[in-house]
Amino acid sequence: MIVELISTGSELLLGQIVNTNVTYLAKELNQLGFDVCYQSTVGDNYQRMENVFRTALKRADIVITTGGLGPTLGDITKEVGAKIFHKQLKIHEPSKALMEKRFEAKKIPYTENNLRQVMAPEGADVFLNHNGIASGIALNQDGKILIHLPGPPREMKDMFQRSVVPYLAELFPIKARIESKILNTIGIGESLLETKLKSLLEKQSNPTMALLIKPNGGVLIRITAKGDSHQQCNDLIAPLERKVRSLVGEFIYSVGEESLESAVGKLLLEQKATVACGESCTGGMVAAALTSVSGSSGYLKGSIVTYCDEVKARFLKVDEQLLKNCGAVSPEVAEAMARGVKELFNSDYSIGITGIAGPTGGTAEKPVGLVYIGVATPQGITVEKNLFLGDRKKVRDASTYRALTILWQELRKSN
Amino acid sequence: MIVELISTGSELLLGQIVNTNVTYLAKELNQLGFDVCYQSTVGDNYQRMENVFRTALKRADIVITTGGLGPTLGDITKEVGAKIFHKQLKIHEPSKALMEKRFEAKKIPYTENNLRQVMAPEGADVFLNHNGIASGIALNQDGKILIHLPGPPREMKDMFQRSVVPYLAELFPIKARIESKILNTIGIGESLLETKLKSLLEKQSNPTMALLIKPNGGVLIRITAKGDSHQQCNDLIAPLERKVRSLVGEFIYSVGEESLESAVGKLLLEQKATVACGESCTGGMVAAALTSVSGSSGYLKGSIVTYCDEVKARFLKVDEQLLKNCGAVSPEVAEAMARGVKELFNSDYSIGITGIAGPTGGTAEKPVGLVYIGVATPQGITVEKNLFLGDRKKVRDASTYRALTILWQELRKSN
Repeated sequence: MIVELISTGSELLLGQIVNTNVTYLAKELNQLGFDVCYQSTVGDNYQRMENVFRTALKRADIVITTGGLGPTLGDITKEVGAKIFHKQLKIHEPSKALMEKRFEAKKIPYTENNLRQVMAPEGADVFLNHNGIASGIALNQDGKILIHLPGPPREMKDMFQRSVVPYLAELFPIKARIESKILNTIGIGESLLETKLKSLLEKQSNPTMALLIKPNGGVLIRITAKGDSHQQCNDLIAPLERKVRSLVGEFIYSVGEESLESAVGKLLLEQKATVACGESCTGGMVAAALTSVSGSSGYLKGSIVTYCDEVKARFLKVDEQLLKNCGAVSPEVAEAMARGVKELFNSDYSIGITGIAGPTGGTAEKPVGLVYIGVATPQGITVEKNLFLGDRKKVRDASTYRALTILWQELRKSN
Repeated sequence: MIVELISTGSELLLGQIVNTNVTYLAKELNQLGFDVCYQSTVGDNYQRMENVFRTALKRADIVITTGGLGPTLGDITKEVGAKIFHKQLKIHEPSKALMEKRFEAKKIPYTENNLRQVMAPEGADVFLNHNGIASGIALNQDGKILIHLPGPPREMKDMFQRSVVPYLAELFPIKARIESKILNTIGIGESLLETKLKSLLEKQSNPTMALLIKPNGGVLIRITAKGDSHQQCNDLIAPLERKVRSLVGEFIYSVGEESLESAVGKLLLEQKATVACGESCTGGMVAAALTSVSGSSGYLKGSIVTYCDEVKARFLKVDEQLLKNCGAVSPEVAEAMARGVKELFNSDYSIGITGIAGPTGGTAEKPVGLVYIGVATPQGITVEKNLFLGDRKKVRDASTYRALTILWQELRKSN
């Protein structure tokens, strides 16, 4: 069953709100086994809306609209749908009764235009709204289904779960489920990952596999299976996951929504090890990431932001001569910071970061984006030179993510 | 000029990510005077994508796609566009040279499939990508324009501003402008703000005014004018802005995109004053916010994350007896932390935060979300008790924002 989702409303076309309705419906419908192949957005223009509805009804079996069920003259979704299906709109008495009860409870009178919200095409299935006024509609004719849902997310979601899911389940006893498993990788680019997984990517049917770049720079591997049950989907995914892990397992740090900082935390807990940070250009971001994980007090000993040389020297015992000779942004100082913070907090692991986040402060020799990351382990200290591109935010985000990556890799070595 | 935005990618159809690209582009294009009348989303299926592109090119003058310019075989956007315009794809040498430079800087080799990202249809205008590999494309033929932009928001936004805006401005000299000015407020709720601005909100035409709640809790006042030029819009906005400021000026901390941490930084610089932080439940987030502003080394003396009692006692001289008697999450400890960190770093102002971020660690007496914020000024120390609702992230975000709010209010008093 091919589904098209249509969002109506000028606020979407003007870019004033983000369309989360479509994300919600797409996710829910896919999990129920429907194929959402198209999403469209159109404004409150009658002719354009009619054309968009007609195009959708040609290429999809089920068309679900959101929005445009309000009381104003600009709310025309139901009129357009009724016209296409050659139906008249009439007052739907159970909807009207529910509306009257709602207004009575609020002790305010409803207005004439509220009546528009409780009208329905003759012969349509009507979904009562338990969170607002406008009823939902389902028209089923000539093998095509057109469903209208209200735009406010709270009303839409409740009506979808309460009424649309059972409505569709009765028409299409649910056969297929679509489930995905996400494997998160770091330390390997999309192209190289694809090359390593080429043999698996080439012959796909069920399950399928896709690579997606995450905004922070990691790449995720998504394995998607279609089956009759959760168990069957799992059974389809498991063998492919094993093959993927045998090829690129060393780069996979977590499954699903689990963050890198959480994966780092797990390894620290497993090893009963502690960590501390000394941050210059990231200004507390590494500590903030580590402490975003509940239970991080079990391994984060402390963190210090050393934004000026004086603080680096005083707390991290970075040699003042070193600061003068090599400059604060240097591999020597990154190493000294990692060593100093490890001693200061008496931790097993530590991170020292110094760099130029920009936009000012760069020179030809030491440009904006130059960041040295020192990571101390029980075995020793490594320092990495990085040149990150982009604005201040991008440089700081990349530095934070890279520091956590190196720490994860070091922890994995000792695992 | 009618514009259609097309997003490509299975992750949108599966509901795995929210489509923010379309919101951004719609907003920007509307401000430039273009009418965004349609938005569509389609997956990586060749036939479906071709049909969606053809439908769009029939009903719109300008079609802008995002996504599907990556190196993998699933990235077919450019192929589909080239086919519709009867063009061959060839390597675009300047794009290839830029890609090679990028890979050289990273000291990793590019792979054969990266070459797909620097191909362009013959005769197309090509937009270089300064934040990634894939170039953007513009095809202009038979009165229709088809533009392909990359999917990652950072790459897309930069390319849009850098290349697409000038490209469109040359083809369609801009006639009507819609411009907005945003005044950011804190320390006043939406209802009270509306009451104070009632006389101005009631009689609106051009400019119009709206109040919007920001996700972090502040309220912004948006004044929007329609005019022939930037100057005319400005002249319409200025008198209304003066009236707004005369009524609620004391709550306005910045204009436009300027953040609260930047406003705090400006006041510190003006007063030649310094600040330091001692953070427990926010784990470095206040320091990270302060250092997100370029030039913050001019006022942030340092910051320390004191996640355990031992570190609070050792560095911030928080009395161990106090910790034992009152508990780490108490007004007494917040005050002692603010005082201790002010002395440790010898700063003029300081922040001390202690609280229960959750999800664990709460009790009936001290529930999750209980956060004490101490702010020390040259005059004294104030401690505020907060009870924030929501998950760990929400409690930490709210704590950070509240600490900066109090600091801004204190700084404003001494201004």
